[in-house]
Amino acid sequence: MQEFFSTVPSRIPFEGLDSTNPLAFKVYDADRVVAGRTMAEHLRIAVCYWHSFNWPGSDVFGGGTFDRPWLDDPTSMDAARSKMDAAFEFMSKLGMPFWCFHDRDIAPEGDTFTETVANLESMVEYAEKKMADTGVQLLWGTANAFSHPRFAAGAATNPDPRVVAHAAAQVKHAMDATVRLGGQNYVLWGGREGYETLLNTDLGREAEQMARFLHMVVDYKKSIGFEGTLLIEPKPQEPTKHQYDYDSQSVAGFLARYDLEGEFKVNIEVNHATLAGHSFHHEVAYAVANGVFGSIDANRGDDQNGWDTDQFPNSVDELSLAMYEILKGGGFTTGGFNFDTKLRRQSVARDDLFHGHIGGIDTLARSLLVAETLVESGELAAAVDERYAGWDGELGRDIMSGATLASLAEKVGADNIDAAPTSGRQEALENVVNRAIWTTS
Amino acid sequence: MQEFFSTVPSRIPFEGLDSTNPLAFKVYDADRVVAGRTMAEHLRIAVCYWHSFNWPGSDVFGGGTFDRPWLDDPTSMDAARSKMDAAFEFMSKLGMPFWCFHDRDIAPEGDTFTETVANLESMVEYAEKKMADTGVQLLWGTANAFSHPRFAAGAATNPDPRVVAHAAAQVKHAMDATVRLGGQNYVLWGGREGYETLLNTDLGREAEQMARFLHMVVDYKKSIGFEGTLLIEPKPQEPTKHQYDYDSQSVAGFLARYDLEGEFKVNIEVNHATLAGHSFHHEVAYAVANGVFGSIDANRGDDQNGWDTDQFPNSVDELSLAMYEILKGGGFTTGGFNFDTKLRRQSVARDDLFHGHIGGIDTLARSLLVAETLVESGELAAAVDERYAGWDGELGRDIMSGATLASLAEKVGADNIDAAPTSGRQEALENVVNRAIWTTS
Amino acid sequence: MQEFFSTVPSRIPFEGLDSTNPLAFKVYDADRVVAGRTMAEHLRIAVCYWHSFNWPGSDVFGGGTFDRPWLDDPTSMDAARSKMDAAFEFMSKLGMPFWCFHDRDIAPEGDTFTETVANLESMVEYAEKKMADTGVQLLWGTANAFSHPRFAAGAATNPDPRVVAHAAAQVKHAMDATVRLGGQNYVLWGGREGYETLLNTDLGREAEQMARFLHMVVDYKKSIGFEGTLLIEPKPQEPTKHQYDYDSQSVAGFLARYDLEGEFKVNIEVNHATLAGHSFHHEVAYAVANGVFGSIDANRGDDQNGWDTDQFPNSVDELSLAMYEILKGGGFTTGGFNFDTKLRRQSVARDDLFHGHIGGIDTLARSLLVAETLVESGELAAAVDERYAGWDGELGRDIMSGATLASLAEKVGADNIDAAPTSGRQEALENVVNRAIWTTS
Amino acid sequence: MQEFFSTVPSRIPFEGLDSTNPLAFKVYDADRVVAGRTMAEHLRIAVCYWHSFNWPGSDVFGGGTFDRPWLDDPTSMDAARSKMDAAFEFMSKLGMPFWCFHDRDIAPEGDTFTETVANLESMVEYAEKKMADTGVQLLWGTANAFSHPRFAAGAATNPDPRVVAHAAAQVKHAMDATVRLGGQNYVLWGGREGYETLLNTDLGREAEQMARFLHMVVDYKKSIGFEGTLLIEPKPQEPTKHQYDYDSQSVAGFLARYDLEGEFKVNIEVNHATLAGHSFHHEVAYAVANGVFGSIDANRGDDQNGWDTDQFPNSVDELSLAMYEILKGGGFTTGGFNFDTKLRRQSVARDDLFHGHIGGIDTLARSLLVAETLVESGELAAAVDERYAGWDGELGRDIMSGATLASLAEKVGADNIDAAPTSGRQEALENVVNRAIWTTS
Ligand SMILES: [Co+2]
Ligand SMILES: [Co+2]
Ligand SMILES: [Co+2]
Ligand SMILES: [Co+2]
Ligand SMILES: [Co+2]
Ligand SMILES: [Co+2]
Ligand SMILES: [Co+2]
Ligand SMILES: [Co+2]
Repeated sequence: MQEFFSTVPSRIPFEGLDSTNPLAFKVYDADRVVAGRTMAEHLRIAVCYWHSFNWPGSDVFGGGTFDRPWLDDPTSMDAARSKMDAAFEFMSKLGMPFWCFHDRDIAPEGDTFTETVANLESMVEYAEKKMADTGVQLLWGTANAFSHPRFAAGAATNPDPRVVAHAAAQVKHAMDATVRLGGQNYVLWGGREGYETLLNTDLGREAEQMARFLHMVVDYKKSIGFEGTLLIEPKPQEPTKHQYDYDSQSVAGFLARYDLEGEFKVNIEVNHATLAGHSFHHEVAYAVANGVFGSIDANRGDDQNGWDTDQFPNSVDELSLAMYEILKGGGFTTGGFNFDTKLRRQSVARDDLFHGHIGGIDTLARSLLVAETLVESGELAAAVDERYAGWDGELGRDIMSGATLASLAEKVGADNIDAAPTSGRQEALENVVNRAIWTTS
Repeated sequence: MQEFFSTVPSRIPFEGLDSTNPLAFKVYDADRVVAGRTMAEHLRIAVCYWHSFNWPGSDVFGGGTFDRPWLDDPTSMDAARSKMDAAFEFMSKLGMPFWCFHDRDIAPEGDTFTETVANLESMVEYAEKKMADTGVQLLWGTANAFSHPRFAAGAATNPDPRVVAHAAAQVKHAMDATVRLGGQNYVLWGGREGYETLLNTDLGREAEQMARFLHMVVDYKKSIGFEGTLLIEPKPQEPTKHQYDYDSQSVAGFLARYDLEGEFKVNIEVNHATLAGHSFHHEVAYAVANGVFGSIDANRGDDQNGWDTDQFPNSVDELSLAMYEILKGGGFTTGGFNFDTKLRRQSVARDDLFHGHIGGIDTLARSLLVAETLVESGELAAAVDERYAGWDGELGRDIMSGATLASLAEKVGADNIDAAPTSGRQEALENVVNRAIWTTS
Repeated sequence: MQEFFSTVPSRIPFEGLDSTNPLAFKVYDADRVVAGRTMAEHLRIAVCYWHSFNWPGSDVFGGGTFDRPWLDDPTSMDAARSKMDAAFEFMSKLGMPFWCFHDRDIAPEGDTFTETVANLESMVEYAEKKMADTGVQLLWGTANAFSHPRFAAGAATNPDPRVVAHAAAQVKHAMDATVRLGGQNYVLWGGREGYETLLNTDLGREAEQMARFLHMVVDYKKSIGFEGTLLIEPKPQEPTKHQYDYDSQSVAGFLARYDLEGEFKVNIEVNHATLAGHSFHHEVAYAVANGVFGSIDANRGDDQNGWDTDQFPNSVDELSLAMYEILKGGGFTTGGFNFDTKLRRQSVARDDLFHGHIGGIDTLARSLLVAETLVESGELAAAVDERYAGWDGELGRDIMSGATLASLAEKVGADNIDAAPTSGRQEALENVVNRAIWTTS
Repeated sequence: MQEFFSTVPSRIPFEGLDSTNPLAFKVYDADRVVAGRTMAEHLRIAVCYWHSFNWPGSDVFGGGTFDRPWLDDPTSMDAARSKMDAAFEFMSKLGMPFWCFHDRDIAPEGDTFTETVANLESMVEYAEKKMADTGVQLLWGTANAFSHPRFAAGAATNPDPRVVAHAAAQVKHAMDATVRLGGQNYVLWGGREGYETLLNTDLGREAEQMARFLHMVVDYKKSIGFEGTLLIEPKPQEPTKHQYDYDSQSVAGFLARYDLEGEFKVNIEVNHATLAGHSFHHEVAYAVANGVFGSIDANRGDDQNGWDTDQFPNSVDELSLAMYEILKGGGFTTGGFNFDTKLRRQSVARDDLFHGHIGGIDTLARSLLVAETLVESGELAAAVDERYAGWDGELGRDIMSGATLASLAEKVGADNIDAAPTSGRQEALENVVNRAIWTTS
């Protein structure tokens, strides 16, 4: 079998911060114990198939720049196997425990749906062997129901029921593949579940379609006894002008409104958070606080560019607080950090895929260490507790239980109840965070 | 009584498009019948008290520029009465049927809560007379629970229960005032219900506080037999870094998650929609499709500025489609178009307040005419119906009722069910809209 | 020769606003005289080759959706001729006077540069005949020095001089082709003249490279006696993270700093203006006021999407004021309105390309009529003149000629020179514009 | 004399990263030598008067929250002296070498211009003593020509020459005050030099006014023998819709176009960079590469809020690369880091002003250490050099000197000169930066 990444002869080692070897981890030490679990157990890192093995380095203004021989014939099963060889060689050398895929990443469409299913099943079988050989496990699978022209107007929310049926069939088989490969989660990203223009769109009807589709997914999950987690990945726009699963709050609300609460959690992507006008920290904190935290697509956007750049994470400053929320919330159960990350188009060298992942993984590892410091010191938590301490008093309990506007108005009038603002201590707390970042190693 | 707007001696007339009189309506003809109701009945326009009479033309970088003698002493009840004289003189000359106010716009705070309530009641009594004299009615009232320093960390979501109690008392009296003045709606805008930093914030607890507060509002409404509508006004940020009622979808989801569905509708502001990353058209369409459409704060933002400019609406292109959704959805019930609009800081002339309102009102009127054209021609609706026509067929009905992923997979496999994309016709439909805009008069 | 647009049997007629024929102009009446010239002479509309004939309807998340048989084999000269047949059939039926192209749109690259040049020359010859047959003229030509992987790090600003040499050679031949086809302008859009990261970029050196390249272009223009206009098209980003020709002001400054003033004008694209944080109106007004106004890429962006959507223009409200600046500035000389516009990916029907252009052209035509109204009424110009009238007085003349800070300080101290703000009349002037929009037909 | 910051009894000490004392520096050690200078000499930190002592904690939606007794009567000279007492007490305890001010920060306007000048001179005299007592020096002075209503339509670019004369007189006296206090720079921020609407604006005329004004400033500087640096502070918008000094590139271009090159440098503010669509790193790199780098207003914006939040800097990840550009460019000459920073409105406690500054100063100090590491390792510089190495070869030299498009076309044709992309190594270089951040202490 051909070796594709021959300049990286063996597994990426951990060498610590003193190392200047660009092909070594500086922080990520899989077995290092942090807050009671190993780094590997905390981070549950996955390599994604699409950006790393299925994308040739093209963009809207130019063709592929990468040297990816397995992409030369996208319709061939031989090429699909070569691609999988390359992917598992890479994953094995990187040494991460998980991978993720879309059905169409690993197997080409055939001339008929039946042939497509056969292609998928054949590649799933091939993947099974690869996974057994390398020990890499499946974090999650998903169906690509957005790239093919048939999905131009959506999958579950397509105006044409034939497309919805096709999508349902595709999801069924993608779920089957996920289950067969021992996947711990199944993800739905509604890439084109949204609209280009309201002029041709029936918002109410499409919401009903989406809800119905999600119910079918839940029912199918139960019918096959899948024990993993169903995840929805929010994104506000792109490729559509407006996507329905705008952010975590929108998803949580939709689930409540359509009797789906408890059936889905969210797969939060850093760059989707920022495109939605939120910090990544916000999206994680919202999901944890509202019981929908599932998994993470680790990447970053560009602060100046208004599209999904899916760059490798590289800021401990940006990630530490999100990591703190995760750790404080008990950490991942079935989820993990999936590297939904793209090399920059000029990163054409054979090793660049390693550089991107190594830097990103070290960034997560260091953010985890900072989060541990913050959890253990308890300073942030104590400040929050103190700020809300009044709720343990009589007035606080009364407000949350028996009071009415009228009873409160009476009290306020009688006792002139009022309060001057107390300090929110934002700058002081930011200093606490920075001290954790600067002293952790 | 002093005349404040003496350069506009009498009521603004309707003179039609041929008029070059800047102090005449060109389109808004109150009694003109459009789609079965008069323009006045459709638009239900309100003048707002805060921007128009309470704001001196200041901004973050400079002091007030406007000539508003009644603002010279903000603590005096005499000045409050002068302000109300000026406001009703303006409203009367403008000839709109409604007004809106915050409690603190019309009456200054006193030294104690009791004195504050007395001030408010005194001014409500004064307003009652003014309304009787002029025939102007109250579209809605609301409480300003964001300007005073006590609310720096929020009102209902303040970490200090004393502030929450104070806010509850304030809302109680603001609701009473609204009812006494015959208000058709009561609005809650959570100006500081959000956070500046997650470092000092307990998201989960604040959501519980907010839900509890809203339940108290609902209970109080019922206890006093208020028949109007409760409205929540979404805004994504400003003054807070992040506001909980981010957009209509967030509000609708929150209501569902906290057993408040059916109790509140949304008051959509144009500029808040755009700050949230949505078109105004989107917010209206979402609200109508999801049963939460209530009322509108008519204004516009600046496409290049990232803050709430609250400018007067001036684009028929921007407003016609939102108006079409409203008309198609049956129009306002208790809601209307409130002019939550600020003059530009340089618009210091005595007449500028008229120019802003006249232009904005004519823009709404013309948009209404365009909407009527679009509803009557039925072209857009027909295109939408045709696009979803497949759902009346057997496959469509099966998907929405009995089907499962497995049954659909079997069908798709057996019959190779698939579909090429059909045209979304976006450009053609945009041309239909433009023809309506260009031919309506 | 095959007919590609057979559902549109003949030239699109002008039928006026009463027509409901979607394949007729409602406003654009080529020979209608407006402010002393025909509409066709004012607008000088061009069809662009790339989006309309070279793009299959793909985006970053999915493949081509359009039915464009001539794109099946992008390396074949036969296909290139079919494409040109289709393009000129379309242009001829649309009836516009101009077209625009990149070298690589019309002819595929060969195996060597020499073969590439031969391909280009062959297609230029073919185009010459097509132009003669149809009467369509060339508004401008340009070189695509951004799509091929060699240009991943820029063309003129590439770190590798071999790529710069290649780009220079390519531009030379593209200029030759433009001249041979009678082009009235030659455009440079620096698609990848910028950076992805400052970490690998020498800003100073790349500026020198860019300046040197532009000087070579100017010298070559002069050496061959090309009488047309050289144009630079600003864009702030995309595909690069940061593009050097950020906006018109950046370009004008660069020209001044590198002794290139007077040699280039700008080709302003609507969507590039908005991506740069400016209104289109601003970009046009800046260019006119600073002597660099050249030509326009007519399209529009989406207010909610942070990338270049290149949609068809459809808002008279957005375009009228830019058109007013153009008209007031004397109109185009060699420039015109090039339709740098993409259909939406779902607009797959044979006719959609006509719908997009017809709607956009009518929008421009109507904006032109509004601009004429505004110029003829003179109200805006008079308001501006009045606002600056003080500069004709003694103090104004003194400030602009002999005064110093010290002399002015003395005067201000002596006479306490000061002034209260006078109204900027923004709302009143916006009403003037809207009256023009609403009454023009 | 009253002690205002009594909870901070003495100068803030340096205690190192192990300290948990919130009122100690963890990184900033004034005398620590870094790359040949002390930290104090490198950073040249200044406290600003306006946000820290002149702002009561108000925002657009609410009044002041801070306890600042000296702001109770903004017209009193006694209060102005109290304010200066408080400011110098704070500066002295913080231990930074510099301060900055606007004329109107330190002295109230009088009833006439002459009285205003007298007030200013009196306070300058008072400041002189304070500076002598404390050893704090003046980094720069400036004139507030944007807050007073007279400047609503601009200062230098006001349509009314009386306002321009007034502004000129004011700048004259502010320059005098700066010189008298030994200021090392004089800054112009054109807060309202821009427009609210193009409808009432003559862009060309206002550019001439601005250029004339700047020439007067240069002439006055020379006439009084001021040896410091004149600085322009770019900002894209806010308070105006569009500000002329949009970014560093716009300023540099303007200087070139109006014969002012070499006379002004830029004072770059972090938050203004991001509002303009640039990274702070970009603005610094541009200014250094183009010879206009002068000074820095250190703060940060909020990634989700579209206005100038002026928060305290707190990300070493964000600042290290800008610091690297400064260090590589030779460091400050007359400039420094001015803390143009606002506490958050809830930070009402007496100590919060210290917390904000301490955290921000430590962030700068740590960024400086990272920059030193990057400069000393030379890895980034070596990668850049290697990337452009081809320019030392024959082809590179030819392109930059004798070549023409025609000569290059001939060569490229003859030798088929071309090049495949080489890796831009972005991810690998980002890892180099992160290693520096993570290992520096
Ligand atoms: Co993702
Ligand atoms: Co993404
Ligand atoms: Co509002
Ligand atoms: Co608003
Ligand atoms: Co263009
Ligand atoms: Co474009
Ligand atoms: Co500043
Ligand atoms: Co600022």
